[in-house]
Formats: sequence, structure tokens, C-alpha cells
Amino acid sequence: MCKYELEIVKSMNMKDKIQKDQVPFGKTFTDHMFIMDYETGKGWYDPRIVPYAPITLDPAAMIFHYGQTVFEGMKAYRGEDNRILLFRPDKNFQRLNLSSERLCIPPIDVERVMDYLTQLISLEQDWVPSKEGTSLYIRPYIISTEPGLAVAPSQTYKLMIILAPVGSYFSGGIKPVRISVEDQFTRAVKGGTGMAKTAGNYSSGFQAQAKASKEGNADVLWLDGVEKRYIEEVGSMNIFFKINGEIVTPELNGSILKGITRMSIIELLKEWGIPVVERKISIEELSQAYTEGHLEEAFGTGTAAVISPVGELNWLGRKMIINNNEIGEVSKKLYDTITGIQTGKIEDLHDWTVEIK
Amino acid sequence: MCKYELEIVKSMNMKDKIQKDQVPFGKTFTDHMFIMDYETGKGWYDPRIVPYAPITLDPAAMIFHYGQTVFEGMKAYRGEDNRILLFRPDKNFQRLNLSSERLCIPPIDVERVMDYLTQLISLEQDWVPSKEGTSLYIRPYIISTEPGLAVAPSQTYKLMIILAPVGSYFSGGIKPVRISVEDQFTRAVKGGTGMAKTAGNYSSGFQAQAKASKEGNADVLWLDGVEKRYIEEVGSMNIFFKINGEIVTPELNGSILKGITRMSIIELLKEWGIPVVERKISIEELSQAYTEGHLEEAFGTGTAAVISPVGELNWLGRKMIINNNEIGEVSKKLYDTITGIQTGKIEDLHDWTVEIK
Repeated sequence: MCKYELEIVKSMNMKDKIQKDQVPFGKTFTDHMFIMDYETGKGWYDPRIVPYAPITLDPAAMIFHYGQTVFEGMKAYRGEDNRILLFRPDKNFQRLNLSSERLCIPPIDVERVMDYLTQLISLEQDWVPSKEGTSLYIRPYIISTEPGLAVAPSQTYKLMIILAPVGSYFSGGIKPVRISVEDQFTRAVKGGTGMAKTAGNYSSGFQAQAKASKEGNADVLWLDGVEKRYIEEVGSMNIFFKINGEIVTPELNGSILKGITRMSIIELLKEWGIPVVERKISIEELSQAYTEGHLEEAFGTGTAAVISPVGELNWLGRKMIINNNEIGEVSKKLYDTITGIQTGKIEDLHDWTVEIK
Repeated sequence: MCKYELEIVKSMNMKDKIQKDQVPFGKTFTDHMFIMDYETGKGWYDPRIVPYAPITLDPAAMIFHYGQTVFEGMKAYRGEDNRILLFRPDKNFQRLNLSSERLCIPPIDVERVMDYLTQLISLEQDWVPSKEGTSLYIRPYIISTEPGLAVAPSQTYKLMIILAPVGSYFSGGIKPVRISVEDQFTRAVKGGTGMAKTAGNYSSGFQAQAKASKEGNADVLWLDGVEKRYIEEVGSMNIFFKINGEIVTPELNGSILKGITRMSIIELLKEWGIPVVERKISIEELSQAYTEGHLEEAFGTGTAAVISPVGELNWLGRKMIINNNEIGEVSKKLYDTITGIQTGKIEDLHDWTVEIK
């Protein structure tokens, strides 16, 4: 058997596919998962779809000790016409390879893995929910599995893909969130792993998130690790501001994640003729813009919420209420357009969607 | 049964305990391992010693996605009188709790876990090698096990302890190493996780290590993440310099690991009346000291090698040969003293060692 040929082992115990509007994010998984192995000298081999089940690893597997791992997050949407669509999945797999490069993990063949993903979703198509705002969350990830305590890249890996039906991010309409500017903890720094989707970048933010949450904030706005001045991203989203009619987002500098939603928004804004610029923006400049009445909108962007308007920004005791704590005009138009394309309601003129047949 | 009572399940398949002088680091493990579970509301429970075997986790376990994990490294030494000694294990478990705090992981009861470790090593005592320079490496680690993709601390954890007999770090006598100053990549930054022994801090250094290795270096010297000027640590060791008769080591600033060997060295030097100072030291200052002939010794310190003399330091094309590429007088005295105490050859006047009965 060719090492690239997909094997499918079907589950004998199918779970109930309860279609709930509100399910806790990422707690319910579908009946099957995808696994593929890697070994130095052999490459990626044995792609297989198997029943969703616990995996078994040596206690010395590198993932447990030195965190050599990367992941992605994307969604499959069910349109009103019942078609199942992915949104720019190639970009996610390309970014997975970029993350892998930073972590010394071997790259995957994007086209081949896209094919495996398509077959997995096709098998699990009944799990793709149909209610507005719901979707099937897709989590590809690579873990280093070689048993050994030497601090060096693993010689073996597993690529896994698990699927979780998820409810609407905003129940009862989009609500702007309150976020606080983090002035103590740092998420990422030049020369670090900020641009990579790797596990260590996320647990390192837990303390800051707990602190922000205690003060009633939904998330934190991270500043750069060097000067603690320049805005980087919000929690696990990119951030955009509308200042005096112009959309501003921090430029990709190596410590900011290259968001797929971010990229799509910039493309849309350019098409619409709305001025958009990627540049360094300091928290002082933002605060000044607020004082002068020029901070018109603020929104986070990412796979989870698509667009998450920021209604209140807290910085060193200063409370900035943005757009009267309501979703802004540009934010709303972007949200409607992107979710419209994702669900097939709006014609996809960009070839962004991939249909699962 | 009390939730703190240790259960012991003995292995039916004992491995061969081959006593080799040179074994690859951390590739061979003993017959048993320690496991204890944690659940929010229940605390740590079910401590048990079981046969060393693969562990089984849900594919959505948080360790695979957001890297919430911490670890420690220490050693058990067999003295000439056949006694088995640990070196300051309480400090390691205290540091584990400090790392856990940074990662929002619940603390362990140090005294109780020390007792479990003692029982584990006692059971595995035949695995503690006796040849000079060899030891039994001890790896305690905590992994987050809750299945779920929300970016938030896990509600369940496992504390594991695995043991690996390790060969002599220096075969054929101590050899000074060649290291290069890393000017592109960053290990840690103020407000980050640098002071914590957490997985993500280690794989993030693989690229820099590969680059250094390609140029013939054994390791990298990390500079601070903010100004890229101040010396932090070498690979996974702390670093010391002897400059004009004074021992200098970077001060603990939140991004440097609080080494147990580092701490012990500072205590010894103070007792010996050798001037030692913890302060910021820039790479420019070090280079200047070298130019003026004042850089007398350099050495890394850590559990693995205890003292690892630096014979050559490469920075931006400049090659600095330290102490004629030989181990220095202070480095040698520290190495002999600490390894002497660790193996019981030198009387332990500090109560640093703990004997396994």
C-alpha cells in the first residue's frame, strides 16, 4: 500500500449529533479523527481516518517536555442551500507550515492534507450544524512524539485533525466586548515565536487573561515585548481600529499572528475603497485619537468570532468607550460580508471558499 | 483509601539494568514511574507508582494545544559508599511550584511529593549507576489533561515522575565548549515565561541551536529580549564569568531561570571569600573585558553538566578564546566541590543532600 493512501476505519459507536445553538466551545467532538505519522528518513506516512479515541504516547514523548508542536484552527460552514464550505483552508495549512518551520517541525504537503481533510469532513458531514452562527470547528495539529529528554527536535511526529461542532459565538446578536491593555505580562517579542501558532504562546497568556477577567474584561490587548508601547493583538485575535475614517491594524512584525481573517479584511477594505493601513500603532497614539474623538471603531478578527467589536478599552485606569459601545458601520459590513461568503449567502468572487462534496 | 496514600503496582517485566558509562541522554527509562492526578475541587489525588508504560490522553487534551505544562530536572547520585543521594530536591519542587504559578497550574505539596519521590527511587535503586559522572536523572512534570479547545486553564492535570540512568556528561574529562551569542532569535523577555521551566521555552530555541550547531558551536548564549544586549543564559544553563578576579552572573530578572546549581555556586563562592556579584552584564562589556585581558573564566551551570566551562565565545564574527580553552581554576574548584558533595565524597556541611534509605 502506498504510504500516502488514506485508510478509513469507521466507528462502530456513532455519537448522537445533537444540534444545539449553544454548545461549550471545543468540548464535543465528532465520531472520527485524522492521523498521519512522520519519521525522519521516511517522511509523512500512514494517513488514516479512525474513530475519535484517546491516543497513547510514551511518557518521555517530546510534546510533554519541550513543547515542539503547532496547530491551526478553521471552520466548515453549512449554507442555507445545505452546501458545506471551508474558508481559505489552504491559507491555514500554509500557515501551519510557517509555524512548523519556526519550531523545526517538518512541513506537510498542503494539497495532500487538504484532500485528507475533505474526506474527513465528507465522512462527518452530518456533524456540520446548520443554525445561524454555528459551524464545525477544525483543529489540525502536529505533536512531537519521540521519547527522549535531550533538548533537540523530535525525529517522529503525528499530524492529527479533530472536529468539534460549535455554537454561535454571539448568542442574541453581536455584543461589543470590553478589553484591557496588558501592561505587565508579555505575549511575544521580536525573535520569539509570536508569529507561530504553537502551544506555548497560549498558556503563557493565562495569567494576564485571569487578571483582565477579574476586572470584568473579556480579553487582553497585548503590547509589544520590547517597548511595551506598540499594539500587537487581542487575546487570540488580530486587532483593527478605525481612526478618522482610516482603518489601521498593526503591521506583521514577527510577533503578531498572520490571521486569515485579518488578511481577508484588508483585501475587502481595499476593494471597497476604504483606506486601510498596516503600520505600528502605539497605545499612546490610540489614546490620543480617542481624546480627540477620532477613534471611531475597534474590532478583533479571527476564526472564532470573525469580527468581535471592542466596545470598551481599559488602559492604566482610563476607560475608553468606543462607538457608544455599539458595533460600528465598517465592522458590521465586514462581519456580514465575510460570514455571508463563508456560508454561501454572498457570492464568493474571490475563490475563498472550498466546497466539500 | 486516603487520596494521599501511595499505591505501588510492581512491574512484571523488569528491564536489564545495563551499566554503561556512555548512554544517550534520556533515552532509557527505569521499570516504574510515578503518577498523581488533579481535578479542580478535589485537589491532587491517587498517587501511584506503576510500571513505566505509555499514557493515554484525549486528542483534545490541553497539553497538545495550549502547552500548559511545567517540569523539573534533578539527579540521584550513588556515592562510593553506595549511598544514594539527591541534591537539594526541595529547591526543585519549590521551583516547580513557581513555574506552575506562572502557568496557572495548581501547586503540589512539596513535602508529600518528596516522600513519593523517595519511595520511587528506593524501589528503583538498582537503576542508580555507580561509575564516576553517571547518575539517575529525575524528570518530574505536570501536564494539563482536560479535553477542550477553549483557551483557558485546564481543570485536570497529571504529575508524572520518570527516571533515566544517564552517563557521564564529560567522557574523558571536562572539555570546554564553544558557544555563540545569538543575535537574531530571542529565548525570553520581561513579562514572559523565561523564569518558568515550561515546555514552550525549549522548542522555541531549536532554530537558534541548529544555526549555532551548523557553525560548530555546542550551544547558544541568549541575550535579553528587549535590548538584545544583556546576557541571560546559555542554552539550558545559567552562565558565570570571572572578570578581573570577580565572578559575575546575570541577575534574576524574570526571564532567567533560577538555577539550583547557580544558587549553590553563589553560596559556595561567598563562603570561600571569592567576590561574586549578580548584576546586568552586557555582551559589549564582556567583549571589552576580553579585549583588556580581564575575562579570565566563563562557565555554564546546570543539573546536566554541573559546571560546563566555556572555552570559546563567538559574537558577530569575533572569536574570544577564554583561559586558553582550558577549564579555569574557580570553575574546577566549583565542579569538584559540588560533584563531591553530590556523591558524598565531600562532607555536606550545608544540608544540601538527601539520602534515599
